[in-house]
Amino acid sequence: MAKLSDSGNLHQHISKQYDHELLDIRSRVLALGGLVEEQIESAVRALVEGDVELAYRVIEDDGKVNSMEVSIDEECTQILALRQPSARDLRLVVVVIKTIIDLERIGDEAKRIARHAIDLTQHPASDKQLIELEQLAAHVRVLLHDALDAFSRMDVDSALKVVQDDKQVDQEYESIMRQQISHIMEDPQSTPVSLDIMWISRSLERIGDRSCNICEYVIYYAKGKNIRHISIEQVEKDLSFE
Amino acid sequence: MAKLSDSGNLHQHISKQYDHELLDIRSRVLALGGLVEEQIESAVRALVEGDVELAYRVIEDDGKVNSMEVSIDEECTQILALRQPSARDLRLVVVVIKTIIDLERIGDEAKRIARHAIDLTQHPASDKQLIELEQLAAHVRVLLHDALDAFSRMDVDSALKVVQDDKQVDQEYESIMRQQISHIMEDPQSTPVSLDIMWISRSLERIGDRSCNICEYVIYYAKGKNIRHISIEQVEKDLSFE
Repeated sequence: MAKLSDSGNLHQHISKQYDHELLDIRSRVLALGGLVEEQIESAVRALVEGDVELAYRVIEDDGKVNSMEVSIDEECTQILALRQPSARDLRLVVVVIKTIIDLERIGDEAKRIARHAIDLTQHPASDKQLIELEQLAAHVRVLLHDALDAFSRMDVDSALKVVQDDKQVDQEYESIMRQQISHIMEDPQSTPVSLDIMWISRSLERIGDRSCNICEYVIYYAKGKNIRHISIEQVEKDLSFE
Repeated sequence: MAKLSDSGNLHQHISKQYDHELLDIRSRVLALGGLVEEQIESAVRALVEGDVELAYRVIEDDGKVNSMEVSIDEECTQILALRQPSARDLRLVVVVIKTIIDLERIGDEAKRIARHAIDLTQHPASDKQLIELEQLAAHVRVLLHDALDAFSRMDVDSALKVVQDDKQVDQEYESIMRQQISHIMEDPQSTPVSLDIMWISRSLERIGDRSCNICEYVIYYAKGKNIRHISIEQVEKDLSFE
């Protein structure tokens, strides 16, 4: 009897530890997400305020993003090797492995924005250009924040909303691009500035896309369905029939 | 005896099937890689020859790339769930999951190039611009081909060479970008053409980066070491001490 109970305890202990590990990778993804959000915020502030020192700090801090990603990735491989998760737990680990790749690449975009912020101190952008970038950045930051929120609750509805909202961001991005092209054609001397604005907008638009990727993983986790490459209308229709 | 031998056979049978599955995902990655290579080749040919029909075919065929990726991804999750691989086999599955994401995104870049090829039929690029793009594309295609070759043989030295060669591609890319900026400033009317050239170059440069990602996964598979975010010089030094 004593032996059985011991083995029961051991089993319970291992199972608790395993639950703890799964919780841990989830909360570490959110910590990485928080860091990446800060990086975007700082990069945009460096840009708007022409703060070169802050821009350099963003570039330097990208190392922190990278090492967090590597460390979570290693923890995931450890869990796969030692715990051999199945079903929902397995989907969680796979989703975490993919999500952190996107978060790390969002970090790279923040670094790119910081570099362009440094460039722009050489040939400042107009107030109008900065305001438009700030607006686009604010919307993209909401997308990422909502994507991380959908991840933290593994909530399909919030995830779908992000994918839907990204369309608005795409439109704002297209509008900035069109304006910069006319700007260049009217005043060729403004080319370097306008190109910096275009590259920054592009980085912001990519952050929106990657936030959508994270939401697709959330839906895959919750529903066991891979919705990548399917239109949002089709996905909503499919899910409503369940 | 008979029973033992049966179970032995069964075990051997399952193990053979498992080996077959691991071989299968590897060869399917190479098939996906081959398709993506064709997509790039066609997109660049559509661009150089102004072949709108071919460009539309590239855009349409991106669906094939997407469904291959989803299908390999599902097979990987199945293997993780049913075979619970460990050590090298586990690393292989994780590497495949990551590699196909990069291949699918390379496919997206081919689609972007095809879209710009269609744009460029409205305002044709100069021969010089096309020749430079063709050269950059040729080098990038070699990078991707070598990365897939490194993957097929899981060969660290070839993988390191790709990461090294990508620096040359980055330089060519920078040079095209600089030329287009002066081009725009000299002749603002050329802005739409020059911007298309810049976006295409950017897509090609990103394909080079993603080929490097694949090589990093190959090194992780072979050495069990995550070399992302480490300089190539440091990696070569670390590996030579083994």
